[in-house]
Amino acid sequence: MRVLSPMLKKIDEVTEVSQISQHAGPLGRNPDKNICESVGVVETNYFHFALPPNELTLENGEKLGPITVAYETYGELNDQRSNAILILHALSGDAHAAGFHEGDEKPGWWDDMIGPGKAFDTNKYFVICSNVLGGCKGSTGPSSVNPKTGKKYGLDFPIISISDIVNVQKGLIDSLKIDQLLSVAGGSMGGMQALEWLTAYPDKLKSAIVIATAVKHSPQQIAFHEVGRQAIMADPHWENGHYYGGLPPAKGLSVARMIGHITYMSEVSMAEKFGRRSGDEQPHKFSAGSEVEDYLSNRGNHFVKRFDANSYLYITRAIDSFDVSRGKNLYDVFKVVKAKVLVLAFKSDWLYPASQSLEIVRACKLAGIDTTYCEIDSTYGHDAFLLEVEEETHLVKYFLQRVSLDNGATGVHQALQYEI
Amino acid sequence: MRVLSPMLKKIDEVTEVSQISQHAGPLGRNPDKNICESVGVVETNYFHFALPPNELTLENGEKLGPITVAYETYGELNDQRSNAILILHALSGDAHAAGFHEGDEKPGWWDDMIGPGKAFDTNKYFVICSNVLGGCKGSTGPSSVNPKTGKKYGLDFPIISISDIVNVQKGLIDSLKIDQLLSVAGGSMGGMQALEWLTAYPDKLKSAIVIATAVKHSPQQIAFHEVGRQAIMADPHWENGHYYGGLPPAKGLSVARMIGHITYMSEVSMAEKFGRRSGDEQPHKFSAGSEVEDYLSNRGNHFVKRFDANSYLYITRAIDSFDVSRGKNLYDVFKVVKAKVLVLAFKSDWLYPASQSLEIVRACKLAGIDTTYCEIDSTYGHDAFLLEVEEETHLVKYFLQRVSLDNGATGVHQALQYEI
Repeated sequence: MRVLSPMLKKIDEVTEVSQISQHAGPLGRNPDKNICESVGVVETNYFHFALPPNELTLENGEKLGPITVAYETYGELNDQRSNAILILHALSGDAHAAGFHEGDEKPGWWDDMIGPGKAFDTNKYFVICSNVLGGCKGSTGPSSVNPKTGKKYGLDFPIISISDIVNVQKGLIDSLKIDQLLSVAGGSMGGMQALEWLTAYPDKLKSAIVIATAVKHSPQQIAFHEVGRQAIMADPHWENGHYYGGLPPAKGLSVARMIGHITYMSEVSMAEKFGRRSGDEQPHKFSAGSEVEDYLSNRGNHFVKRFDANSYLYITRAIDSFDVSRGKNLYDVFKVVKAKVLVLAFKSDWLYPASQSLEIVRACKLAGIDTTYCEIDSTYGHDAFLLEVEEETHLVKYFLQRVSLDNGATGVHQALQYEI
Repeated sequence: MRVLSPMLKKIDEVTEVSQISQHAGPLGRNPDKNICESVGVVETNYFHFALPPNELTLENGEKLGPITVAYETYGELNDQRSNAILILHALSGDAHAAGFHEGDEKPGWWDDMIGPGKAFDTNKYFVICSNVLGGCKGSTGPSSVNPKTGKKYGLDFPIISISDIVNVQKGLIDSLKIDQLLSVAGGSMGGMQALEWLTAYPDKLKSAIVIATAVKHSPQQIAFHEVGRQAIMADPHWENGHYYGGLPPAKGLSVARMIGHITYMSEVSMAEKFGRRSGDEQPHKFSAGSEVEDYLSNRGNHFVKRFDANSYLYITRAIDSFDVSRGKNLYDVFKVVKAKVLVLAFKSDWLYPASQSLEIVRACKLAGIDTTYCEIDSTYGHDAFLLEVEEETHLVKYFLQRVSLDNGATGVHQALQYEI
């Protein structure tokens, strides 16, 4: 079954990002111009590894196992096993990046970018996406059962890092008998994983696409996360993380998500989306609010149905403690990198400003890495990495074509047809 | 009793703003350069009005009374009653703007700016500051006793607006038999009150000093407040606002305050204040955090001891619904203004960016108002209006001198000595 790319509306529903329809790029949306189809119906697979006594040793020295990894694949692995691309999701993402689950009306979170003829062209590439360690969408995390106790981990789950997340992905890639990835690609926390892949496994990838991210969080970025964590822990239903079986800390998680939403949008995209109530509107008490207030509240409430509060704590902590340089000079750390790198930033993204992407680019250049940088003109703020499909598609297609030509992953004919 | 200006440390304690001591201006701090003294020991006074059946009619049509106004005065009213300046406080401020309460080690919240020889020179001007309606520091607000029930108002307190706040201040000024103020001055929400004074009582002031504010809140500014309100209301101790007598919603208010703090600081001031923990530091679970996390948490916890959660709800709502233009063209609204206006903004203030101050300036100029604008180069973010004492002092002194000369409020000799 093949399904045409869905309506704009779903972007807001699926990825919970703001959407101003008239600004959306035409790719995959204008049937006259470019009919890009979906990968169709997909299923999530599960990979089990790190079985005792061969547990995974985490960055903090603790051992964890067994570990389950939820993942999906789109397209076909070629005979040389050289056309695999690993997609890396952001804080609230999951393994379901493209296509439709049976019976669902909503596609995966990056369906606009993954599929036949799309940026990550499943006619050419074998695309993989897995849920991160610590997550709550099929991979092992704090809401998984701890085999030692028979109960859900809660706060007994060990502290994890971006490095641990990447090491688990490496386990998955090994299990798929892929010796080298054609590329890894991700935005936000996904970009951090791409940076970690570049430095931790320099021989294991030909390229990396690093979108709207930073080599480490600034105090301001940490602060926004910290307030979200405090909101979760302030919720009496949190119960020190052992709320499973009872009510979850929904209000706290909702507040955390609202804070996140504000930081993902730009001043302009908020103003365009919500306008402002007129000055003569009757003021009211605190049970109902303006359009922006209702939106935030609805998004927060929606989020709690699909995300685990403890995963929010663990994953935001992993992001906040990430530092790909590990205290060293960044360009020294990047000297091991062999892959080509594409770095993308967005003009109105104030959470991960372009200056942080330029820090990556500068260090890459100093380290002699083949690096391409583009700051995309967007009004969507940090959400842009999910919404600026048209420009991202051009840039990613061309970059992958260049990498593929070097690699022989796809035929020249196929590659050239996307030249821009 | 006269007390020398206190140590820098108190700024952080009293106003809960960040402070990087080496950047602080020397005024009032360098005894060799400029010894500015305190107004000494002061007391809060209380003014009662709007006694039934003469209740104040609020903007939303409801009636409120009796109303108590906590206020302080510094300096002396001259015989012509023409040297009075009304200071307007921000969200968490109070009537205690300068000097010391008996036995206290900490001075008022704008002590660096108010006192003999300071920006608001108490040798020349009669300075008044009152706690806003809806507040919790002596003026009538949701934590006051409702005379109709004998219990604290809680959410029975009516919704108030910046206009109501200003009307109460007008009642106080009338009671002091001041027909016309030499100036009104305030930052942030204080600046909104100054704008309201300008348009609501154009004959009642010679000038206004409007600092780091906006004619109305943007959706982003509303959103930050809304998340804070949601955090308070998510706290089970909030009890729909009727928590008096029990435990207050301390955790919710603390989270709200943390969000506020992040928006008051700049990326740079946060980075300078906190640096960042080293990459090899052992990660930890969620009970303790990094320096920035501990700071936010401490500030949040400190705040709940001195502020009422319901006041936070009511006052932030008043700020969010403020629109001095009331849906009309701003310059049309400003055409009634007779006062001279000084508008100040700060370069790193991303909560109230300079563009919002320039909107005020543009409308003032179009309306033919004598307007001076300065964007002060600061790294303190929105906190700058409390911290950039040296530049503010020069600008305010010179502006007030100009206004005073026109007004005859002070002698020429006194005025000229501050010319810069």
